[in-house]
This record gives sequence, structure tokens and C-alpha cells, in this order.
Amino acid sequence: MNSEQQTFSAGLEGVIACATRLSHVDGEAGRLIFCGHNAVNLATTRTVEEVWFLLHHGRLPDETELASFKAKIETLGALSDKEVTLARTLRAGEPLSAFRTVLSAIASARGYKPWLNRDQAVVEEEILALSALAPQIVEVIHGDRAPLSKEGNNGYAERYLWGLTGSQPNADLTRALETYLILTIDHGLNASTFAARVTASTGADVGASLTTAVGTLSGPLHGGAPGPVLDMLDAIGTPENARPWVEQELGAKRRIMGFGHRVYRTDDPRAITLRSVAEKQNGPRITLARVVEQEVLAALAAHQQQRSAEQGKQKRPLRTNVEFWTAVVLEHVGIPRELYSSTFCTSRIIGWGEHIREQLQNNKLFRPLSVYSGPPVSE
Amino acid sequence: MNSEQQTFSAGLEGVIACATRLSHVDGEAGRLIFCGHNAVNLATTRTVEEVWFLLHHGRLPDETELASFKAKIETLGALSDKEVTLARTLRAGEPLSAFRTVLSAIASARGYKPWLNRDQAVVEEEILALSALAPQIVEVIHGDRAPLSKEGNNGYAERYLWGLTGSQPNADLTRALETYLILTIDHGLNASTFAARVTASTGADVGASLTTAVGTLSGPLHGGAPGPVLDMLDAIGTPENARPWVEQELGAKRRIMGFGHRVYRTDDPRAITLRSVAEKQNGPRITLARVVEQEVLAALAAHQQQRSAEQGKQKRPLRTNVEFWTAVVLEHVGIPRELYSSTFCTSRIIGWGEHIREQLQNNKLFRPLSVYSGPPVSE
Repeated sequence: MNSEQQTFSAGLEGVIACATRLSHVDGEAGRLIFCGHNAVNLATTRTVEEVWFLLHHGRLPDETELASFKAKIETLGALSDKEVTLARTLRAGEPLSAFRTVLSAIASARGYKPWLNRDQAVVEEEILALSALAPQIVEVIHGDRAPLSKEGNNGYAERYLWGLTGSQPNADLTRALETYLILTIDHGLNASTFAARVTASTGADVGASLTTAVGTLSGPLHGGAPGPVLDMLDAIGTPENARPWVEQELGAKRRIMGFGHRVYRTDDPRAITLRSVAEKQNGPRITLARVVEQEVLAALAAHQQQRSAEQGKQKRPLRTNVEFWTAVVLEHVGIPRELYSSTFCTSRIIGWGEHIREQLQNNKLFRPLSVYSGPPVSE
Repeated sequence: MNSEQQTFSAGLEGVIACATRLSHVDGEAGRLIFCGHNAVNLATTRTVEEVWFLLHHGRLPDETELASFKAKIETLGALSDKEVTLARTLRAGEPLSAFRTVLSAIASARGYKPWLNRDQAVVEEEILALSALAPQIVEVIHGDRAPLSKEGNNGYAERYLWGLTGSQPNADLTRALETYLILTIDHGLNASTFAARVTASTGADVGASLTTAVGTLSGPLHGGAPGPVLDMLDAIGTPENARPWVEQELGAKRRIMGFGHRVYRTDDPRAITLRSVAEKQNGPRITLARVVEQEVLAALAAHQQQRSAEQGKQKRPLRTNVEFWTAVVLEHVGIPRELYSSTFCTSRIIGWGEHIREQLQNNKLFRPLSVYSGPPVSE
């Protein structure tokens, strides 16, 4: 039982599990890269489909390629009438749990089979199709109706917002959502992406892998789910109340939502970008969010300075993470609060799909070891 | 980008991902331990519920405890009428994909929520309930009818067999299935168990974690799925045809199903136990299986001896794995071939449930790193 003497890193922290050409989280420099491109630049100047094409082909598309890719995603993204009915019968429970079930049911009803030993072009089409369906799945789960007809080739972001709000959104709101969707499209081996690759590594059908990813995303420790940030803004209410509220929370040693990240050692570039998206807009909620952020950052810096002095070593102050400004932006564009996780899922499902494709192009079964910590063998 | 210089072990091979008190796979000694007990002894003398109790409480039950645990599992294992109807609408596709969807749908419709910050007794009951439902879920998916009424307190193994075959099975067949179900109830950090723990580690609801596990199990590289072994026996047909068939397959460098294992370096104890279960029965199929096993082992030994001589180092001959005799036993007890993976799932879901419970008792988010292999940053 040699393994009993081995040490291990809890949560696989610091362990490299695979290589990926899709994204690079440079936590020290506070930089996020998608296939050689700075995610922040992409998020402010490109569309979801352009970045999806980049992840898929390793380079940005020209005009003709983009038009053809957009048309393909729009076609693949349509549920059949039968699937709309199926999705409507599975709406019970949390929206993201319903999404998980609907996705699993569609893959199963379409007869998706283990990818191993099958025509890889067909499997890759299945991956694209399931990812492309995300906006319509969320729309049907939310609305309990057939998806709205959306005239013209609107693109992934606009179709999503149109389906949820019921009318064609203006260009500003679409751009704000598009920036969010691009920024969160991929992020290295976060837990859901990792879990999707583990499932794919057994040769399971791509529906199984994406179902795994959705289920894994639904946990509150996953990160990226910004609902609780709005609960916090609600509780604070007015800018004047920000400082006493923050002091009270820190005094009670409660965690403040929207600050700190396991990987970034400096500013989260997604948070900075979403803050400037929000700052271009107006409204009392955005003013409140700015004051709260300043108060929290000041209080956290003072808190860490005090801990540094007590412990005689430099403690790094916590920074704003992506959840804080995501909450403000998603509220501003009109997404219902109970669908923030589903909106995150609608972006990240693109990254999951590309990670699954990458996994099956160079597959090796994920089969780590456990160390036995039970009673000694008695018989 | 320090991480780019780090090396990693593909598939996390040899990496310890967590500690578990539930099972220990001693690959060198060819021994499998469940909570301090030899799995082979448990499988030949105990019931599924006794071993389940052992995994749950860390010790075997006395008579009163067992009766109460059996009654609890039987009660939790009943689908409501509404759930039977739901399951019947989700029968499309592969039986195990349908199982995945039905399980996800039930958890969602019951309103299961992220386990974090909830009453842990309630969460543990949810885990037990979803595991206990497995026999009825498989029965409804297979039969497209309400589950049969089974008089008396029959136990997990008998209820499963009764539901699939339509009549009360005799004690011999039940015992054979019970031995199989116990032997496969847990097996360290196999890919599905690992994936279930990754999903649980984000705080996701236990339905999400079990759905992940079912999806991960459905891949042909997972191991434990014995269907292809029977296809092989069909192709061979008669004992006389065994030797030429094996020589032809090895000559064509095709993999022979049911031999070799990533962890066991000697005989797989589950294979030995299931072989003796099969040998207690009679029939031309069992005779055929014995001849085929002998021919394959002899041919593989000669093959490895030749490779050892060529390469100047000792190559270990492949042994019979659990899939080979599982196929023979499951066919003998009357389980339809398309349900072998679902039967495996009905056993392993007990182990998954206990691993999820263990994960949430001492949780740490699984968040490994990836190394970037994409193009250099261009903007």
C-alpha cells in the first residue's frame, strides 16, 4: 500500500491536468488569452460567433467565413417542435437544473452515441448543435412557450436577449451582453470544463459531457454566478449605507460576494472590462455599485493591512472579481435575476464544447488514484 | 507563464486526487477492500443492503439495523406515479442515456438544491433516495409500464431482477446477481466516481453529481461494460472455434474484450469470484466461456513472452478482467444484453452516492490547472 505514504494536493490545486490551446489564464499578470488573442480586446470589438470561430479554428474568420458560420449556428440553434414540447414538460425546478435535464433529454432523443469509433465530423456537428441550442433552451424554460420568431440573422447574443425579454433589444444592450458572453466563454480548466473533459475521456456521448458541465456549473462554489451580488446591493439599498454595511459584514467575518478569486493575483481583467461597460450606462443602481465597490475595496485593503501587520507577512488585498460587475451589467440589460446562471451557461457552453472536441482529438482516460483512509483490513 | 514549463501526467495517471475510506484497490496484490472488508468475502456472503450499510456507517449492521435499513431503502426506492409517467416520456435513446435524463429530471422536479449551507441530514436522504430509485428507473425505462408490485421485503437485488424479468427470480439467480452487484459497488476513483466528486465539489445538488456519474459511466473506455464480451462469444460460437478465432484476432492486432486492466497487475479478484459463480451453473454458454478464456490467456501469454524476448524486458501477461465473467453471469441470470451498463449503474450508484457524501463532509473545490498550448499572444 505504497500509495498511503504519498501526499496529494487537495482539490488538485496546482496540479496540471491537461494542455489546451483554447485559453490561458495568466493569474499573475491579470490577463486572459483566447487562442493567442487578448480576451478583453475580443470582448469589446468582436461578436460571440467570431470568438467561437476563433476557438474552433484557431484563427479569426474573414467576412465570408463569419457569415457562413453565423448562418450555421443559427440553423443548428433551432429546436424542433417536438423538442420544444419536450423542454416544456421538463421546466420544473431551478432553471439551470431544468437546462441540464433538457440538454440531456435532447441528446438522448436525438440518439447521440459514444463518440469513440464514430465519424468525427458527425460528432463535432453534435457538439456545435448542442451548444447552439442554449439560447432557445433558456427561452423555452423561462417562457413556457415556443421560441419567438426573430427576423433576420441576429446573432447569438441578440437572439438570446430577444428571446428572454420578448422584443428586439437595442444595439447598446446587445453589445453589453455580447461583451459579457465573450469574456466568460472560456477560462482554462475551471471545474465545469474539467468535469466535461473527464466525462468525454471515457468515450461518452457529447450530450453526457455537456450535461456534466451544466450540473457542475450549478454549484455556488463554481464561481461566475452573480445572483448573490444583487442580493447584497438590495440589502445595502443606498450609497450612504454602503460603509456601515461593509463594516458590519467584515466585523461579523462574513464573506462579501463579488471579491477575490482563486487564480487571479491581481485585477481580474473581466471585472475591469465589465466595469467600463457598466460605467458607460447611467442609473442609480450603477452609482450604488460604484460606491459599494470602492467601500469594499478600501475596507478589504485596511483589513489585509492589519492582518499583514499581525502576522508579520504581506497579505495581498482582495480585488473585485467578475461576478460583481456581471451582476450589474446583466441587470441593466434586462435579464431576470433567476437566469444569471443560465446566461453564464449560454456563454460557457461554447467553451465546454471546444474543450470536449479538443479532448477527443487527443484522448486519454482521466483515472486518478485515491488513497485509502478507511479502517484496516479485518477479513 | 511558469506553468508552461511544468510537466503533467496525461489522464492524471498516478496522481492522487483524494482520500477515501470507502474502498481500496490494491492492484499489486489483486485485492479489493470495502471499508476494511475484503470485497470477495462480502460478495459471497452478504446482501447489497449490508454492504451499502457498511459503506454508509463504516461497519456491518446487526439484524435490527439491517431490517430497518432494508425497509428504508425499499421505501425510498419507490417512484411516485407522476415520476413513473415522467420516466416513460424520457425513454428514447440508449437505456443508460435515458437513465441519466430520468435521474436528472427527478432530482430537478423534486426541487433538489445545491447542498451547500443546507441541512446535511436532508441532503444525505436525497443521496440515498436517488440511489435507491435505480432499480425502478431501469424497470420503467425497459418495460414502458408501471413498476411491478413485488410482495414482501425482497431486497435490492431481487427487486431489480424481478422488475426486469417480470416474475420472482429463484434464490440461485438472485444470489448470482447479488454477488455481481456487491463486487462492482465501488472501485476507488474510477472516472465516474471521480467526476461525481468534481461536480459535488462545486456545491451542486446531489442530482447533478449523480447525473454526471451516469453520463461518465456510459463511455466505452470506462470499463465494466460487458456487452462486447457477449458479441465476442456469439462470433466464436462453438468451443472448437475458439483457438482459430483468437489467433486470427491477435494476428490482426485487434483488442480482445474482457482482458487487461489499468490498475490490477495480477488477477482481478472480481473476475475470479464471478468465474466461480458461473462455474456453479451449467450450460453450453458457460462451457464456451471457459474454453475461450483458456485459449485467450494461453495466446496472450505466448504473445507477451515473444514480445519480452524481442524487447529484452519482461512483459506482464494480461489477465481476465471483471467484464468477461460479468457478461456470462448477467446473461445467465436473464438480464437483457442492452441493460448490462444499466445494471452496472444500479450497483455503482450506491458507491457514487457514498463518495458524494464523503466529498461534502470534507469539501474542497476540484480546480486543477491547464497548460496553454495555443498560439503566442498576438494582440
